[in-house]
Amino acid sequence: MISIPENSDFSLHNLPYGIFSTPGTAPRAGVAIGNHILDLHALALCGVFDFDPSILAQPFLNDFIALGKTTTNQVRHYMQKELKNPNADHYKNKTLWITQTEATLHLPVKIGDYTDFYSSIEHATNVGKMFRNPDKALLPNWKHIPVGYHGRASSIVVSGENIRRPKGQILPKGEDQPIFSPTQQLDFELEMGFVIGKENTLGTAITTEKAEDYIFGLVLFNDWSARDIQKWEYVPLGPFLSKSFASSMAPWIVPLEALAPFRVQGPKQNPEVLPYLQYNGPKNYDIQLEVGISPEGDSETTVCRTNYKSLYWNMAQQLAHHTVNGCSVRVGDLMASGTLSGASETAYGSMLELAWAGTKPLPMAGGSYRVFIEDGDTVTLRGRAEKDGIRVGFGSVQTKILPSL
Amino acid sequence: MISIPENSDFSLHNLPYGIFSTPGTAPRAGVAIGNHILDLHALALCGVFDFDPSILAQPFLNDFIALGKTTTNQVRHYMQKELKNPNADHYKNKTLWITQTEATLHLPVKIGDYTDFYSSIEHATNVGKMFRNPDKALLPNWKHIPVGYHGRASSIVVSGENIRRPKGQILPKGEDQPIFSPTQQLDFELEMGFVIGKENTLGTAITTEKAEDYIFGLVLFNDWSARDIQKWEYVPLGPFLSKSFASSMAPWIVPLEALAPFRVQGPKQNPEVLPYLQYNGPKNYDIQLEVGISPEGDSETTVCRTNYKSLYWNMAQQLAHHTVNGCSVRVGDLMASGTLSGASETAYGSMLELAWAGTKPLPMAGGSYRVFIEDGDTVTLRGRAEKDGIRVGFGSVQTKILPSL
Repeated sequence: MISIPENSDFSLHNLPYGIFSTPGTAPRAGVAIGNHILDLHALALCGVFDFDPSILAQPFLNDFIALGKTTTNQVRHYMQKELKNPNADHYKNKTLWITQTEATLHLPVKIGDYTDFYSSIEHATNVGKMFRNPDKALLPNWKHIPVGYHGRASSIVVSGENIRRPKGQILPKGEDQPIFSPTQQLDFELEMGFVIGKENTLGTAITTEKAEDYIFGLVLFNDWSARDIQKWEYVPLGPFLSKSFASSMAPWIVPLEALAPFRVQGPKQNPEVLPYLQYNGPKNYDIQLEVGISPEGDSETTVCRTNYKSLYWNMAQQLAHHTVNGCSVRVGDLMASGTLSGASETAYGSMLELAWAGTKPLPMAGGSYRVFIEDGDTVTLRGRAEKDGIRVGFGSVQTKILPSL
Repeated sequence: MISIPENSDFSLHNLPYGIFSTPGTAPRAGVAIGNHILDLHALALCGVFDFDPSILAQPFLNDFIALGKTTTNQVRHYMQKELKNPNADHYKNKTLWITQTEATLHLPVKIGDYTDFYSSIEHATNVGKMFRNPDKALLPNWKHIPVGYHGRASSIVVSGENIRRPKGQILPKGEDQPIFSPTQQLDFELEMGFVIGKENTLGTAITTEKAEDYIFGLVLFNDWSARDIQKWEYVPLGPFLSKSFASSMAPWIVPLEALAPFRVQGPKQNPEVLPYLQYNGPKNYDIQLEVGISPEGDSETTVCRTNYKSLYWNMAQQLAHHTVNGCSVRVGDLMASGTLSGASETAYGSMLELAWAGTKPLPMAGGSYRVFIEDGDTVTLRGRAEKDGIRVGFGSVQTKILPSL
């Protein structure tokens, strides 16, 4: 019988979904529980669910998610009920359980479209102060629109995959001719993403009231950025190659239902937003987040501690805005928050802000300093919600940076 | 035996691929020839190709394209050889041929990521003059970078699908509070897109020399835009909802090989571009393009005639730039040119430019005027290459605008 360590991210309240494989077996659906993975396909083959088990033997969760919340919540409730009973048959059946360290984790969904928002007021203000006008740091549209842009889906990889430092065009300070070079300003962006669980029809909008019906679950997300490439390319059509070289996603999708105990009211929005962006009830989530950097051969230094709850524009508003023009969303689409920065200087969600555009080098535990991410560094994002003895964790997104080819 | 009308877009030199269905049959691969469609799946079932015919019975061309150019060119050469012989068995087999008017055409590929470039110098200059600085219309990066941005793939529809006028946030002139309204500045953008036929590995770049190996074919593309929504939302992260409500794509993908006779040298690039963007040989294509508007119940007025050959940044440069940071591309990805505007005032590829931001209303044949697209209007894009008696046409992208819900 498996046991769940007391401080595990993966309690019975959580039950996040992922795709895993073991040597010689094909990728299939699993649920993280303690230090184990419950093989959901093998469980389904026991005949406990009323859908075709082969849906869980696919290399992505999309078709399972597309069954809808009625079905996926039945799966969730079945597991919660059965696994609370230590005498349950399935619990004792060792072939259903894989130790996490023995498994390879894969990208959990096939992402159709990826959208990145810009919904932290602290982040947008910091960037505005550094790059535009310190006195008018927020642009005029920011408090009216959950600003966002389309990102690149093809280059999203799962935690654990190394990433090469990208090359691109950079305009050296004071010059008017760009050079071609590996980025000198490689940065992480601490984000949370949500995965779409239900599609709308092209031409119809999703209201803030209905939005959470369309959200399957949440994942930790690192939207890697090359700041020098970004600065030169982004006017007028937005970030492009400065982002599209890679983004890193956690392997575990935490169902929205697991986060119900952690709902909180978001920041007051002033000025009042347009009616289609107004909403009722608490729509933010209290999730503690942190970022660690491990230089090659060194121990990890935590450089950021913040919380998802201060997000100015919540997920319901993001999705209502995204579809108010009739844009269609599809199962497996990913929408990320944008960099999550808190108010304090140790709560900023990117190196750009933490080291304030290179002016405040951050000390590492091993004695070195960082203004951006260097080759050989491993960056780890972690997140968890905790309340009244309930812990729902997101695991981590861990990525090592390799030098340019 | 079918005959090919003399001025058909779909000559034996062309052989564009699409996905079609007829009442009671499933979508499958076909090739446009004259006024007919050759049922490629039915042809494959005759045993003439050496791959699994079921690849041609799928609702998208992706798996066929992924077979690679060696195979798809064998299919092309087989058809060209067999169909030139009026006594060929397959030519006489009537079950292989469907009249185009009896078929429904579908989106030909499942698009993973969609990228839109901004590669016409005339278009970028016109927009810069109207919205930014008439004296410095081109931004400093424009002649160094094939500027582009990520678009929305989910809302790309095929020619013939009606589109609803989108709603969104608009900042009325002289105001500081946005309103929510149907767009008052709905616009088309005349573009050509290319479909990726081969994937690269994340972290590796595609050179300009190899780029055309990765391009399966070209399509006409209308990147619908809501200019008032765009103006308010696009700083600092680029166009978002002003584009994502819909884009319209032609049903027929013209293989790059069909365009070989129409290669021409592109405009001279000055200043010299960085080495990774340099290229050898003619990489532009001489393709005549036009746009017509038919107000409800009126005949069509041609509002634009231009040519793809004046594009400043060619496809090879676009693809080399897109991947120089290691970004991966996948079979079925779509990359569009950006609005194709020529030098003359009747060669501009958008209403924004043709009616110069609303200041020069365009007369329609029926006596009305247009500054942007109105409800009930049908917009048609057409394209064709012609030389030495060879005609390779792109068919059309035709879309009717319905009022907002």
